[in-house]
Amino acid sequence: MIKIVVDIQGADSAAPTLIDGVINALEKNAELFVYLCGDKAELEAELSGKRYDTERLQIIDAPQVITNDEKPLAAVMAKKNSSLVKGLELCKSKSDVGAFVTCGATGAMFVAAMMLLEKIVKSPALLCALKKPNGAQFCIVDCGANVDCRPERTEDFARIGVAYMKTVGVQLPRIALLSNGAEDAKGNKFTKQAHDILRASDLNFIGNIEGSDVLSGNADVIVSEGFGGNVLLKTIEGSAKAVVSELKESIKAKMGDYSELDEIVDAVYREYDYTTQGGAMLLGFKTPIVKGHGAATAETVYNIIDIAYSLANNGVMEKIQNEF
Amino acid sequence: MIKIVVDIQGADSAAPTLIDGVINALEKNAELFVYLCGDKAELEAELSGKRYDTERLQIIDAPQVITNDEKPLAAVMAKKNSSLVKGLELCKSKSDVGAFVTCGATGAMFVAAMMLLEKIVKSPALLCALKKPNGAQFCIVDCGANVDCRPERTEDFARIGVAYMKTVGVQLPRIALLSNGAEDAKGNKFTKQAHDILRASDLNFIGNIEGSDVLSGNADVIVSEGFGGNVLLKTIEGSAKAVVSELKESIKAKMGDYSELDEIVDAVYREYDYTTQGGAMLLGFKTPIVKGHGAATAETVYNIIDIAYSLANNGVMEKIQNEF
Repeated sequence: MIKIVVDIQGADSAAPTLIDGVINALEKNAELFVYLCGDKAELEAELSGKRYDTERLQIIDAPQVITNDEKPLAAVMAKKNSSLVKGLELCKSKSDVGAFVTCGATGAMFVAAMMLLEKIVKSPALLCALKKPNGAQFCIVDCGANVDCRPERTEDFARIGVAYMKTVGVQLPRIALLSNGAEDAKGNKFTKQAHDILRASDLNFIGNIEGSDVLSGNADVIVSEGFGGNVLLKTIEGSAKAVVSELKESIKAKMGDYSELDEIVDAVYREYDYTTQGGAMLLGFKTPIVKGHGAATAETVYNIIDIAYSLANNGVMEKIQNEF
Repeated sequence: MIKIVVDIQGADSAAPTLIDGVINALEKNAELFVYLCGDKAELEAELSGKRYDTERLQIIDAPQVITNDEKPLAAVMAKKNSSLVKGLELCKSKSDVGAFVTCGATGAMFVAAMMLLEKIVKSPALLCALKKPNGAQFCIVDCGANVDCRPERTEDFARIGVAYMKTVGVQLPRIALLSNGAEDAKGNKFTKQAHDILRASDLNFIGNIEGSDVLSGNADVIVSEGFGGNVLLKTIEGSAKAVVSELKESIKAKMGDYSELDEIVDAVYREYDYTTQGGAMLLGFKTPIVKGHGAATAETVYNIIDIAYSLANNGVMEKIQNEF
């Protein structure tokens, strides 16, 4: 049995509207057990009319909610009965929990994890997994957890990325460093130092990569400090959205309504939308954390539980430990 | 008459194949005069069969070429007869030159400009102009000329951006700072300081912007140090390309060849392709410089001459001086 702790609160949508995501995940994975953290009365009321394997779902009563508007540290300190804090405490106390899933506030998640979970690497990092047009999966580390780190940390980010790629079946991931030019000498002070460190390591480092080549090149792990990685990730998302919306308008203007085409366009867009893909992970703590977007739907919750299940099932933590 | 110096060498394509871009620009703008810098014999041979107003084109013999593979400083020092160096010397010696255009190496262009041209601001910056899906133009400053600058420089970048937007008719441009979150407190040390500086200035500063909102938000000038700006710019380009190529494949697979659709998709893509749009400018020297992509075609050369003409015609240098 793979046990996952799910923090169902803190997203834009109310917890009950997200519950079908949990039920569908239980339906898909017969070996999944969920600790569902939220307002017990509310969740029980919603669950009472649903069909699911009651043996594999346990509600943890944690009615307090931490929102995006609160100061992370103060909120985590004050709200001991929040689904975030109680969920992470469960991860800490139970050694057999395989992963933690949340759609709540990113800052609070990071602060609470730092306070409650044991670190297995020096700088846990936010990793986002995406797909290239050719269908190949790749990841970006760090996507925003470490915005003022030292160049040495990029080696840790690379190792976390390698461990993740191994869980999805890529045995010798190619690592590239995000820079403002592909040549070795290109970059700011940070990337020039990081380049030398990665080059001197035993990693499969293939050099610098520009933003324009991330989706078309052959790198499996894009390494960056958190600021650049965040710009990269969000710009991919925003650009895909802009191009798709303009295309739909343009097709409509020139060819009229054409629902078949809209479906094709939407399908392509979804592949670049990390909010529905849900592949944002905070890795480097004893428990891997999968972070859904605040605008999560039941489908997002289903996806992130599925990703968390797969991470735990493929031993991502052992793989990270092996890389260090 | 608007006089533009054109460095026709240093692009991936040979100079003669690009010459139609110059001729078409002369054809379009009756008030355009071009100093064409390159190998005189080669250019004369190519031009001999063409129809154009010979009164408005003068060849400057500068047969040496500086390539992307050379060390910028050494190449600029050694190649006094290069089209880049001779072209910039012409800008320096003739007070009535309105702009300089090149498709050559970026590094050499920057070094040569620093050596040969008078600066009118402390840190000249690379500005790229793009369009949003709604057709509105916006710009990103700096896109890579200043990768390790101080936060104070972002105010200069903003003023350069404001001056540029005024040349395209936006009277009160809205300025946003690229960051890893929209909230005021988000960012790394650099952006937090830059945020405070921009907030305290008399600029029309609307706050931080994430990569996901650049194409959909209402900012006219995106300000960043050169590293983040470069990641942003190139990721927009690469993502648009990836989404479009995947869409074309997907449409083909599901609906068969459909040339009408391909044309629509291509037209949308071109709007995100700053290499064909050609809107990269190095601003802050006495002469504005428009930089075409190394993979320039005759169409690119036409576009960048047209942009240079428009910059000179709209007094971009006076507008920059007015902002400082």
